[in-house]
Amino acid sequence: MTTSQAARPSLTVYKIGGGILDAAAELPRFLDLLARQPGLKLLVHGGGKGASALLRERGHEPQMLHGRRITDAATLEVVTMFYAGKTNKQLVAALQARGLNALGLSGADADVLRGIHRPPAPVDYGFVGDLTAAGVGAARLHGFLAAGLLPVLCPLIHDGHGQLLNTNADTIAAAVAIALAGFYAVTLHYCFEKNGVLRDVNDEQSVIAILNPLIYAELRAQEIINAGMLPKLDNAFAALAQGVERVIIGHALNIGTEMHTKLCPS
Amino acid sequence: MTTSQAARPSLTVYKIGGGILDAAAELPRFLDLLARQPGLKLLVHGGGKGASALLRERGHEPQMLHGRRITDAATLEVVTMFYAGKTNKQLVAALQARGLNALGLSGADADVLRGIHRPPAPVDYGFVGDLTAAGVGAARLHGFLAAGLLPVLCPLIHDGHGQLLNTNADTIAAAVAIALAGFYAVTLHYCFEKNGVLRDVNDEQSVIAILNPLIYAELRAQEIINAGMLPKLDNAFAALAQGVERVIIGHALNIGTEMHTKLCPS
Repeated sequence: MTTSQAARPSLTVYKIGGGILDAAAELPRFLDLLARQPGLKLLVHGGGKGASALLRERGHEPQMLHGRRITDAATLEVVTMFYAGKTNKQLVAALQARGLNALGLSGADADVLRGIHRPPAPVDYGFVGDLTAAGVGAARLHGFLAAGLLPVLCPLIHDGHGQLLNTNADTIAAAVAIALAGFYAVTLHYCFEKNGVLRDVNDEQSVIAILNPLIYAELRAQEIINAGMLPKLDNAFAALAQGVERVIIGHALNIGTEMHTKLCPS
Repeated sequence: MTTSQAARPSLTVYKIGGGILDAAAELPRFLDLLARQPGLKLLVHGGGKGASALLRERGHEPQMLHGRRITDAATLEVVTMFYAGKTNKQLVAALQARGLNALGLSGADADVLRGIHRPPAPVDYGFVGDLTAAGVGAARLHGFLAAGLLPVLCPLIHDGHGQLLNTNADTIAAAVAIALAGFYAVTLHYCFEKNGVLRDVNDEQSVIAILNPLIYAELRAQEIINAGMLPKLDNAFAALAQGVERVIIGHALNIGTEMHTKLCPS
Protein backbone atom coordinates (compact mmCIF):
# COMPACT_ATOMS: atom_id res chain seq x y z
CA MET A 1 0.00 0.00 0.00
CA THR A 2 1.37 3.41 -0.96
CA THR A 3 1.16 6.41 1.32
CA SER A 4 -1.49 8.04 -0.85
CA GLN A 5 -3.60 4.91 -0.68
CA ALA A 6 -3.26 4.80 3.09
CA ALA A 7 -4.61 8.36 3.30
CA ARG A 8 -7.85 7.51 1.55
CA PRO A 9 -10.92 7.14 3.79
CA SER A 10 -12.59 3.74 3.95
CA LEU A 11 -15.74 2.99 2.02
CA THR A 12 -17.70 -0.25 2.01
CA VAL A 13 -19.93 -1.06 -0.97
CA TYR A 14 -22.56 -3.51 0.28
CA LYS A 15 -24.52 -5.55 -2.22
CA ILE A 16 -27.72 -7.21 -1.07
CA GLY A 17 -30.07 -9.40 -3.09
CA GLY A 18 -33.25 -11.38 -2.85
CA GLY A 19 -32.00 -13.54 0.02
CA ILE A 20 -32.35 -10.71 2.50
CA LEU A 21 -34.80 -8.44 0.60
CA ASP A 22 -37.42 -11.21 0.53
CA ALA A 23 -36.92 -12.11 4.21
CA ALA A 24 -39.38 -9.76 5.90
CA ALA A 25 -38.26 -10.67 9.41
CA GLU A 26 -34.53 -10.52 8.67
CA LEU A 27 -34.31 -7.32 6.62
CA PRO A 28 -34.80 -5.00 9.64
CA ARG A 29 -32.06 -6.94 11.48
CA PHE A 30 -29.72 -6.46 8.53
CA LEU A 31 -30.48 -2.71 8.42
CA ASP A 32 -29.87 -2.46 12.18
CA LEU A 33 -26.48 -4.15 11.68
CA LEU A 34 -25.67 -1.94 8.71
CA ALA A 35 -26.36 1.19 10.76
CA ARG A 36 -23.77 0.02 13.32
CA GLN A 37 -20.94 -0.55 10.83
CA PRO A 38 -18.19 2.07 10.91
CA GLY A 39 -17.01 4.11 7.95
CA LEU A 40 -18.64 5.37 4.79
CA LYS A 41 -21.19 3.11 3.17
CA LEU A 42 -22.92 2.64 -0.18
CA LEU A 43 -25.66 0.08 -0.78
CA VAL A 44 -26.50 -1.69 -4.04
CA HIS A 45 -29.64 -3.78 -4.03
CA GLY A 46 -30.98 -6.37 -6.41
CA GLY A 47 -34.52 -7.38 -7.04
CA GLY A 48 -35.91 -10.28 -5.15
CA LYS A 49 -38.98 -12.29 -5.94
CA GLY A 50 -41.46 -9.41 -5.78
CA ALA A 51 -40.86 -8.21 -9.33
CA SER A 52 -41.48 -11.68 -10.74
CA ALA A 53 -44.63 -11.99 -8.64
CA LEU A 54 -45.93 -8.64 -9.92
CA LEU A 55 -45.08 -9.65 -13.48
CA ARG A 56 -47.03 -12.91 -13.11
CA GLU A 57 -49.92 -10.98 -11.52
CA ARG A 58 -50.01 -8.89 -14.72
CA GLY A 59 -50.09 -12.01 -16.90
CA HIS A 60 -46.42 -12.14 -17.93
CA GLU A 61 -44.38 -15.21 -17.11
CA PRO A 62 -40.83 -14.10 -16.18
CA GLN A 63 -38.25 -15.34 -18.67
CA MET A 64 -34.73 -16.17 -17.52
CA LEU A 65 -31.79 -17.27 -19.65
CA HIS A 66 -28.40 -18.25 -18.20
CA GLY A 67 -29.63 -16.84 -14.89
CA ARG A 68 -30.35 -13.43 -16.40
CA ARG A 69 -33.79 -11.90 -16.77
CA ILE A 70 -35.03 -11.27 -20.30
CA THR A 71 -36.48 -7.75 -20.08
CA ASP A 72 -39.21 -6.90 -22.57
CA ALA A 73 -41.10 -3.59 -22.33
CA ALA A 74 -43.68 -4.98 -19.88
CA THR A 75 -40.91 -6.40 -17.70
CA LEU A 76 -38.97 -3.13 -17.76
CA GLU A 77 -42.07 -1.27 -16.56
CA VAL A 78 -42.51 -3.72 -13.69
CA VAL A 79 -38.88 -3.77 -12.58
CA THR A 80 -38.74 0.05 -12.76
CA MET A 81 -41.77 0.24 -10.47
CA PHE A 82 -40.53 -2.49 -8.19
CA TYR A 83 -36.78 -1.83 -7.92
CA ALA A 84 -36.73 1.99 -8.18
CA GLY A 85 -40.10 2.46 -6.51
CA LYS A 86 -41.01 -0.06 -3.88
CA THR A 87 -37.71 -1.72 -2.89
CA ASN A 88 -35.53 1.36 -3.15
CA LYS A 89 -37.87 3.74 -1.30
CA GLN A 90 -38.72 1.26 1.44
CA LEU A 91 -34.98 0.74 2.05
CA VAL A 92 -34.34 4.49 2.04
CA ALA A 93 -37.19 5.23 4.48
CA ALA A 94 -36.05 2.38 6.76
CA LEU A 95 -32.44 3.65 6.72
CA GLN A 96 -33.63 7.19 7.51
CA ALA A 97 -35.43 5.77 10.54
CA ARG A 98 -32.04 4.38 11.66
CA GLY A 99 -30.30 7.74 11.37
CA LEU A 100 -28.60 7.00 8.04
CA ASN A 101 -29.18 9.76 5.51
CA ALA A 102 -29.94 7.49 2.56
CA LEU A 103 -30.34 8.74 -1.00
CA GLY A 104 -32.01 6.30 -3.38
CA LEU A 105 -30.75 6.36 -6.94
CA SER A 106 -31.39 4.68 -10.24
CA GLY A 107 -28.58 5.01 -12.75
CA ALA A 108 -30.42 7.89 -14.45
CA ASP A 109 -30.51 9.94 -11.25
CA ALA A 110 -27.68 12.47 -11.35
CA ASP A 111 -26.33 10.36 -14.24
CA VAL A 112 -24.57 8.04 -11.80
CA LEU A 113 -24.73 4.83 -13.90
CA ARG A 114 -24.63 5.23 -17.66
CA GLY A 115 -24.13 2.20 -19.90
CA ILE A 116 -25.06 0.72 -23.20
CA HIS A 117 -28.06 -1.26 -24.35
CA ARG A 118 -26.72 -4.81 -24.75
CA PRO A 119 -26.65 -5.77 -28.46
CA PRO A 120 -29.47 -8.18 -29.44
CA ALA A 121 -27.05 -10.83 -30.74
CA PRO A 122 -26.18 -13.58 -29.93
CA VAL A 123 -28.97 -13.42 -27.33
CA ASP A 124 -31.61 -10.69 -27.18
CA TYR A 125 -32.05 -9.94 -23.49
CA GLY A 126 -34.26 -6.94 -24.30
CA PHE A 127 -33.88 -3.77 -22.22
CA VAL A 128 -30.72 -4.91 -20.49
CA GLY A 129 -27.68 -2.71 -20.02
CA ASP A 130 -23.96 -3.28 -19.75
CA LEU A 131 -22.02 -1.11 -17.34
CA THR A 132 -18.32 -0.61 -16.86
CA ALA A 133 -16.49 1.40 -14.22
CA ALA A 134 -16.09 4.17 -16.83
CA GLY A 135 -19.88 4.62 -16.85
CA VAL A 136 -20.03 5.23 -13.10
CA GLY A 137 -20.38 8.88 -12.02
CA ALA A 138 -17.66 8.42 -9.43
CA ALA A 139 -17.12 12.12 -8.72
CA ARG A 140 -20.87 12.58 -8.21
CA LEU A 141 -21.12 9.60 -5.85
CA HIS A 142 -18.04 10.91 -4.02
CA GLY A 143 -19.82 14.26 -3.69
CA PHE A 144 -22.90 12.60 -2.18
CA LEU A 145 -20.75 10.62 0.27
CA ALA A 146 -18.76 13.72 1.21
CA ALA A 147 -22.07 15.49 1.86
CA GLY A 148 -23.01 12.86 4.45
CA LEU A 149 -25.33 10.82 2.25
CA LEU A 150 -25.53 7.04 1.88
CA PRO A 151 -26.27 6.24 -1.78
CA VAL A 152 -28.70 3.34 -2.28
CA LEU A 153 -28.49 2.12 -5.87
CA CYS A 154 -31.16 0.03 -7.56
CA PRO A 155 -30.22 -2.23 -10.48
CA LEU A 156 -31.32 0.07 -13.30
CA ILE A 157 -28.92 2.09 -15.44
CA HIS A 158 -29.66 4.48 -18.32
CA ASP A 159 -28.22 5.00 -21.78
CA GLY A 160 -28.22 8.81 -21.77
CA HIS A 161 -30.88 8.85 -24.47
CA GLY A 162 -33.87 8.39 -22.21
CA GLN A 163 -33.84 4.60 -21.93
CA LEU A 164 -33.68 2.82 -18.59
CA LEU A 165 -31.97 -0.58 -18.71
CA ASN A 166 -32.16 -3.53 -16.33
CA THR A 167 -28.69 -4.50 -15.10
CA ASN A 168 -27.28 -7.17 -12.81
CA ALA A 169 -26.75 -5.80 -9.30
CA ASP A 170 -23.52 -7.78 -8.68
CA THR A 171 -22.05 -6.15 -11.79
CA ILE A 172 -23.16 -2.69 -10.67
CA ALA A 173 -21.62 -3.20 -7.23
CA ALA A 174 -18.28 -4.26 -8.75
CA ALA A 175 -18.24 -1.36 -11.25
CA VAL A 176 -19.06 1.16 -8.50
CA ALA A 177 -16.41 -0.29 -6.18
CA ILE A 178 -13.76 -0.08 -8.92
CA ALA A 179 -14.77 3.46 -9.93
CA LEU A 180 -14.64 4.71 -6.34
CA ALA A 181 -11.24 3.16 -5.65
CA GLY A 182 -9.73 6.42 -6.86
CA PHE A 183 -11.29 8.22 -3.90
CA TYR A 184 -11.50 5.58 -1.19
CA ALA A 185 -9.96 2.41 0.21
CA VAL A 186 -12.89 0.30 -0.97
CA THR A 187 -14.21 -2.92 0.49
CA LEU A 188 -16.76 -4.67 -1.72
CA HIS A 189 -19.05 -6.73 0.50
CA TYR A 190 -21.29 -9.24 -1.26
CA CYS A 191 -24.09 -10.31 1.10
CA PHE A 192 -25.88 -13.50 0.15
CA GLU A 193 -27.63 -16.52 1.65
CA LYS A 194 -24.53 -18.49 2.69
CA ASN A 195 -21.86 -17.88 5.27
CA GLY A 196 -19.20 -17.46 2.59
CA VAL A 197 -17.40 -19.50 -0.05
CA LEU A 198 -17.78 -23.05 1.24
CA ARG A 199 -15.48 -26.08 0.92
CA ASP A 200 -18.62 -28.20 1.24
CA VAL A 201 -21.75 -26.54 -0.17
CA ASN A 202 -23.85 -28.49 2.35
CA ASP A 203 -21.84 -27.37 5.38
CA GLU A 204 -22.28 -23.72 6.39
CA GLN A 205 -19.36 -24.09 8.79
CA SER A 206 -16.91 -24.98 5.99
CA VAL A 207 -16.25 -21.35 5.10
CA ILE A 208 -12.93 -20.66 3.37
CA ALA A 209 -11.65 -17.73 5.47
CA ILE A 210 -9.20 -16.21 3.00
CA LEU A 211 -8.79 -16.44 -0.74
CA ASN A 212 -6.11 -14.82 -2.85
CA PRO A 213 -5.51 -15.51 -6.54
CA LEU A 214 -3.04 -18.31 -5.75
CA ILE A 215 -5.29 -20.14 -3.26
CA TYR A 216 -8.27 -19.58 -5.56
CA ALA A 217 -6.42 -21.16 -8.49
CA GLU A 218 -5.45 -24.16 -6.37
CA LEU A 219 -8.94 -24.74 -4.95
CA ARG A 220 -10.42 -24.28 -8.38
CA ALA A 221 -8.03 -26.82 -9.89
CA GLN A 222 -9.01 -29.26 -7.16
CA GLU A 223 -12.70 -28.56 -7.92
CA ILE A 224 -13.30 -27.76 -4.27
CA ILE A 225 -15.24 -24.56 -4.95
CA ASN A 226 -18.83 -24.97 -6.14
CA ALA A 227 -19.12 -24.17 -9.85
CA GLY A 228 -21.98 -21.73 -9.18
CA MET A 229 -19.60 -19.48 -7.23
CA LEU A 230 -17.04 -19.15 -10.03
CA PRO A 231 -18.61 -16.21 -11.95
CA LYS A 232 -18.99 -14.22 -8.72
CA LEU A 233 -15.42 -15.00 -7.69
CA ASP A 234 -13.99 -14.20 -11.13
CA ASN A 235 -15.73 -10.80 -10.97
CA ALA A 236 -14.51 -10.26 -7.43
CA PHE A 237 -10.87 -10.96 -8.32
CA ALA A 238 -11.24 -8.67 -11.36
CA ALA A 239 -12.36 -5.90 -8.97
CA LEU A 240 -9.31 -6.54 -6.77
CA ALA A 241 -7.09 -6.29 -9.85
CA GLN A 242 -8.60 -2.85 -10.56
CA GLY A 243 -7.95 -1.15 -7.24
CA VAL A 244 -10.57 -2.50 -4.83
CA GLU A 245 -8.74 -3.34 -1.59
CA ARG A 246 -10.76 -6.33 -0.48
CA VAL A 247 -13.86 -8.29 -1.26
CA ILE A 248 -15.93 -9.96 1.43
CA ILE A 249 -18.49 -12.64 0.66
CA GLY A 250 -20.83 -13.72 3.41
CA HIS A 251 -24.30 -13.87 4.89
CA ALA A 252 -26.15 -10.55 5.20
CA LEU A 253 -26.76 -11.12 8.91
CA ASN A 254 -23.04 -11.74 9.55
CA ILE A 255 -21.78 -8.29 8.54
CA GLY A 256 -19.41 -6.94 11.16
CA THR A 257 -18.34 -10.46 12.21
CA GLU A 258 -15.42 -12.61 11.06
CA MET A 259 -17.76 -15.25 9.59
CA HIS A 260 -17.16 -14.74 5.86
CA THR A 261 -14.71 -15.30 3.05
CA LYS A 262 -12.21 -12.48 2.52
CA LEU A 263 -10.63 -12.09 -0.89
CA CYS A 264 -7.28 -10.31 -1.05
CA PRO A 265 -5.39 -9.13 -4.13
CA SER A 266 -2.26 -11.07 -3.19
CA MET B 1 -37.31 44.34 -3.05
CA THR B 2 -34.30 44.66 -0.76
CA THR B 3 -30.74 44.50 -2.03
CA SER B 4 -30.14 41.09 -0.48
CA GLN B 5 -33.22 39.73 -2.21
CA ALA B 6 -32.09 41.13 -5.55
CA ALA B 7 -28.79 39.27 -5.19
CA ARG B 8 -30.45 35.88 -4.91
CA PRO B 9 -30.32 33.69 -8.02
CA SER B 10 -33.59 32.81 -9.69
CA LEU B 11 -35.22 29.42 -9.20
CA THR B 12 -38.44 28.20 -10.75
CA VAL B 13 -40.37 25.40 -9.02
CA TYR B 14 -42.50 23.74 -11.70
CA LYS B 15 -45.41 21.56 -10.68
CA ILE B 16 -46.89 19.17 -13.23
CA GLY B 17 -49.82 16.82 -12.80
CA GLY B 18 -51.90 14.26 -14.62
CA GLY B 19 -52.86 16.65 -17.40
CA ILE B 20 -49.42 16.49 -18.95
CA LEU B 21 -48.14 13.23 -17.40
CA ASP B 22 -50.99 11.26 -18.99
CA ALA B 23 -50.59 12.92 -22.40
CA ALA B 24 -48.04 10.66 -24.05
CA ALA B 25 -47.65 12.87 -27.11
CA GLU B 26 -47.42 16.14 -25.17
CA LEU B 27 -45.06 15.17 -22.36
CA PRO B 28 -41.92 15.14 -24.58
CA ARG B 29 -42.91 18.59 -25.89
CA PHE B 30 -43.21 19.88 -22.33
CA LEU B 31 -39.81 18.43 -21.42
CA ASP B 32 -38.27 20.03 -24.53
CA LEU B 33 -39.73 23.39 -23.46
CA LEU B 34 -38.55 22.89 -19.88
CA ALA B 35 -35.00 22.25 -21.07
CA ARG B 36 -35.02 25.62 -22.86
CA GLN B 37 -36.12 27.67 -19.85
CA PRO B 38 -33.39 29.80 -18.28
CA GLY B 39 -32.32 29.67 -14.64
CA LEU B 40 -32.33 27.03 -11.96
CA LYS B 41 -35.22 24.59 -11.98
CA LEU B 42 -36.90 22.12 -9.67
CA LEU B 43 -39.76 19.84 -10.76
CA VAL B 44 -42.56 18.46 -8.59
CA HIS B 45 -44.80 15.90 -10.22
CA GLY B 46 -48.14 14.44 -9.25
CA GLY B 47 -49.61 11.12 -10.12
CA GLY B 48 -51.86 10.92 -13.09
CA LYS B 49 -54.26 8.16 -13.97
CA GLY B 50 -51.72 5.34 -14.11
CA ALA B 51 -51.68 4.68 -10.37
CA SER B 52 -55.46 4.34 -10.29
CA ALA B 53 -55.36 2.02 -13.30
CA LEU B 54 -52.74 -0.18 -11.62
CA LEU B 55 -54.78 -0.19 -8.42
CA ARG B 56 -57.89 -1.34 -10.33
CA GLU B 57 -55.81 -3.96 -12.15
CA ARG B 58 -54.89 -5.34 -8.71
CA GLY B 59 -58.52 -5.46 -7.66
CA HIS B 60 -58.68 -2.27 -5.56
CA GLU B 61 -61.12 0.46 -6.47
CA PRO B 62 -59.46 3.87 -5.86
CA GLN B 63 -61.21 5.83 -3.13
CA MET B 64 -61.32 9.60 -3.23
CA LEU B 65 -62.80 11.99 -0.66
CA HIS B 66 -62.94 15.76 -1.15
CA GLY B 67 -60.64 15.28 -4.13
CA ARG B 68 -57.99 13.53 -2.02
CA ARG B 69 -56.97 9.89 -2.41
CA ILE B 70 -57.63 7.62 0.56
CA THR B 71 -54.39 5.68 0.88
CA ASP B 72 -54.66 2.25 2.47
CA ALA B 73 -51.64 -0.09 2.57
CA ALA B 74 -52.37 -1.57 -0.88
CA THR B 75 -52.74 1.93 -2.33
CA LEU B 76 -49.51 3.13 -0.73
CA GLU B 77 -47.64 0.20 -2.29
CA VAL B 78 -49.04 1.06 -5.71
CA VAL B 79 -48.41 4.81 -5.53
CA THR B 80 -44.87 4.17 -4.26
CA MET B 81 -44.20 1.93 -7.25
CA PHE B 82 -45.91 4.24 -9.68
CA TYR B 83 -44.88 7.72 -8.51
CA ALA B 84 -41.36 7.00 -7.17
CA GLY B 85 -40.66 4.20 -9.66
CA LYS B 86 -42.25 4.57 -13.03
CA THR B 87 -43.21 8.25 -13.31
CA ASN B 88 -40.20 9.66 -11.49
CA LYS B 89 -37.57 7.54 -13.25
CA GLN B 90 -39.07 7.98 -16.70
CA LEU B 91 -39.03 11.76 -16.16
CA VAL B 92 -35.45 11.66 -14.89
CA ALA B 93 -34.22 9.52 -17.82
CA ALA B 94 -36.05 11.79 -20.30
CA LEU B 95 -34.54 14.93 -18.73
CA GLN B 96 -31.06 13.37 -18.81
CA ALA B 97 -31.56 12.80 -22.55
CA ARG B 98 -32.19 16.56 -22.85
CA GLY B 99 -28.99 17.50 -21.06
CA LEU B 100 -30.62 18.28 -17.71
CA ASN B 101 -28.91 16.52 -14.83
CA ALA B 102 -32.07 15.39 -13.07
CA LEU B 103 -32.10 13.77 -9.64
CA GLY B 104 -35.32 11.99 -8.73
CA LEU B 105 -36.32 12.14 -5.09
CA SER B 106 -39.04 10.93 -2.80
CA GLY B 107 -39.29 12.80 0.47
CA ALA B 108 -37.31 10.06 2.23
CA ASP B 109 -34.32 10.48 -0.10
CA ALA B 110 -31.74 12.65 1.63
CA ASP B 111 -34.54 13.50 4.08
CA VAL B 112 -35.79 16.28 1.79
CA LEU B 113 -39.49 16.12 2.73
CA ARG B 114 -40.34 15.08 6.26
CA GLY B 115 -43.86 15.47 7.59
CA ILE B 116 -46.43 13.95 9.84
CA HIS B 117 -48.95 11.18 9.33
CA ARG B 118 -52.28 12.98 9.12
CA PRO B 119 -54.39 12.17 12.22
CA PRO B 120 -57.25 9.70 11.50
CA ALA B 121 -59.95 12.10 12.72
CA PRO B 122 -62.18 13.67 11.50
CA VAL B 123 -61.43 11.75 8.28
CA ASP B 124 -59.06 8.78 8.06
CA TYR B 125 -57.18 9.28 4.79
CA GLY B 126 -54.83 6.42 5.63
CA PHE B 127 -51.12 6.77 4.79
CA VAL B 128 -51.35 10.46 3.94
CA GLY B 129 -48.85 13.03 5.13
CA ASP B 130 -48.98 16.70 5.95
CA LEU B 131 -45.98 18.80 5.04
CA THR B 132 -45.03 22.33 5.97
CA ALA B 133 -42.11 24.43 4.73
CA ALA B 134 -40.32 23.55 8.01
CA GLY B 135 -40.24 19.90 6.91
CA VAL B 136 -38.45 20.70 3.67
CA GLY B 137 -34.71 19.99 3.60
CA ALA B 138 -34.04 23.37 2.03
CA ALA B 139 -30.28 23.39 2.61
CA ARG B 140 -30.01 19.92 1.06
CA LEU B 141 -32.07 20.91 -2.00
CA HIS B 142 -29.96 24.08 -2.26
CA GLY B 143 -26.86 21.87 -2.20
CA PHE B 144 -28.19 19.71 -5.03
CA LEU B 145 -29.07 22.80 -7.11
CA ALA B 146 -25.66 24.36 -6.42
CA ALA B 147 -24.07 21.11 -7.60
CA GLY B 148 -25.79 21.43 -10.98
CA LEU B 149 -28.63 19.01 -10.33
CA LEU B 150 -32.32 19.41 -11.13
CA PRO B 151 -34.33 17.84 -8.30
CA VAL B 152 -37.44 15.95 -9.47
CA LEU B 153 -39.76 15.37 -6.52
CA CYS B 154 -42.51 12.77 -6.46
CA PRO B 155 -45.51 13.24 -4.15
CA LEU B 156 -44.36 10.99 -1.31
CA ILE B 157 -42.95 12.27 1.96
CA HIS B 158 -41.70 10.31 4.99
CA ASP B 159 -42.23 10.58 8.72
CA GLY B 160 -38.63 9.88 9.80
CA HIS B 161 -39.72 6.61 11.38
CA GLY B 162 -39.67 4.50 8.22
CA GLN B 163 -43.13 5.32 6.92
CA LEU B 164 -43.71 6.76 3.45
CA LEU B 165 -46.80 8.97 3.15
CA ASN B 166 -48.82 10.02 0.12
CA THR B 167 -49.02 13.82 -0.14
CA ASN B 168 -50.65 16.29 -2.49
CA ALA B 169 -48.17 17.53 -5.10
CA ASP B 170 -49.55 21.10 -5.15
CA THR B 171 -48.91 21.30 -1.41
CA ILE B 172 -45.38 19.94 -1.81
CA ALA B 173 -44.59 22.45 -4.54
CA ALA B 174 -45.79 25.35 -2.38
CA ALA B 175 -43.89 24.14 0.70
CA VAL B 176 -40.69 23.68 -1.32
CA ALA B 177 -41.06 27.11 -2.95
CA ILE B 178 -41.52 28.77 0.44
CA ALA B 179 -38.61 26.88 2.02
CA LEU B 180 -36.24 27.78 -0.82
CA ALA B 181 -37.18 31.47 -0.77
CA GLY B 182 -34.38 31.95 1.74
CA PHE B 183 -31.84 30.98 -0.93
CA TYR B 184 -33.45 32.03 -4.20
CA ALA B 185 -35.84 34.47 -5.85
CA VAL B 186 -38.48 31.78 -6.33
CA THR B 187 -41.15 31.54 -9.00
CA LEU B 188 -43.74 28.83 -8.34
CA HIS B 189 -45.14 27.70 -11.68
CA TYR B 190 -48.28 25.56 -11.54
CA CYS B 191 -48.76 23.79 -14.86
CA PHE B 192 -52.23 22.42 -15.52
CA GLU B 193 -54.74 21.78 -18.31
CA LYS B 194 -55.97 25.34 -18.78
CA ASN B 195 -54.34 28.49 -20.05
CA GLY B 196 -54.57 30.13 -16.65
CA VAL B 197 -57.17 31.45 -14.25
CA LEU B 198 -60.14 32.14 -16.53
CA ARG B 199 -62.90 34.76 -16.34
CA ASP B 200 -65.06 32.28 -18.24
CA VAL B 201 -64.24 28.63 -17.53
CA ASN B 202 -65.43 27.72 -21.05
CA ASP B 203 -63.22 30.28 -22.82
CA GLU B 204 -59.49 29.48 -22.86
CA GLN B 205 -58.80 32.98 -24.15
CA SER B 206 -60.34 34.65 -21.07
CA VAL B 207 -57.14 34.35 -19.03
CA ILE B 208 -56.77 36.85 -16.20
CA ALA B 209 -53.23 38.11 -16.83
CA ILE B 210 -52.38 39.41 -13.38
CA LEU B 211 -53.78 38.80 -9.93
CA ASN B 212 -52.73 40.41 -6.70
CA PRO B 213 -54.51 40.06 -3.37
CA LEU B 214 -56.67 43.13 -4.05
CA ILE B 215 -57.78 42.08 -7.55
CA TYR B 216 -58.27 38.51 -6.31
CA ALA B 217 -60.54 39.70 -3.51
CA GLU B 218 -62.59 41.77 -5.95
CA LEU B 219 -62.98 39.00 -8.55
CA ARG B 220 -63.80 36.55 -5.80
CA ALA B 221 -66.47 38.85 -4.37
CA GLN B 222 -67.97 39.13 -7.86
CA GLU B 223 -67.87 35.33 -8.17
CA ILE B 224 -65.98 35.65 -11.45
CA ILE B 225 -63.35 33.04 -10.56
CA ASN B 226 -64.44 29.40 -10.77
CA ALA B 227 -64.92 27.93 -7.29
CA GLY B 228 -62.67 24.98 -8.14
CA MET B 229 -59.70 27.35 -8.49
CA LEU B 230 -60.10 28.88 -5.04
CA PRO B 231 -58.08 26.34 -2.98
CA LYS B 232 -55.19 26.51 -5.46
CA LEU B 233 -55.28 30.33 -5.43
CA ASP B 234 -55.52 30.54 -1.65
CA ASN B 235 -52.42 28.31 -1.40
CA ALA B 236 -50.66 30.37 -4.04
CA PHE B 237 -51.29 33.67 -2.25
CA ALA B 238 -50.17 32.05 1.01
CA ALA B 239 -46.88 31.17 -0.72
CA LEU B 240 -46.49 34.77 -1.88
CA ALA B 241 -47.08 35.94 1.68
CA GLN B 242 -44.21 33.68 2.80
CA GLY B 243 -41.46 34.91 0.51
CA VAL B 244 -42.17 33.38 -2.90
CA GLU B 245 -41.75 36.18 -5.45
CA ARG B 246 -44.37 35.14 -7.96
CA VAL B 247 -46.74 32.36 -8.82
CA ILE B 248 -47.61 31.50 -12.41
CA ILE B 249 -50.61 29.35 -13.31
CA GLY B 250 -50.92 28.15 -16.87
CA HIS B 251 -50.91 25.32 -19.37
CA ALA B 252 -47.84 23.06 -19.31
CA LEU B 253 -47.23 23.65 -23.03
CA ASN B 254 -47.25 27.44 -22.56
CA ILE B 255 -44.23 27.69 -20.27
CA GLY B 256 -41.89 30.41 -21.48
CA THR B 257 -44.77 32.37 -23.05
CA GLU B 258 -46.90 35.19 -21.66
CA MET B 259 -50.08 33.06 -21.84
CA HIS B 260 -50.77 32.48 -18.16
CA THR B 261 -51.98 34.09 -14.97
CA LYS B 262 -49.31 35.75 -12.89
CA LEU B 263 -49.90 36.22 -9.17
CA CYS B 264 -47.99 38.99 -7.44
CA PRO B 265 -47.72 39.67 -3.70
CA SER B 266 -48.97 43.26 -4.08
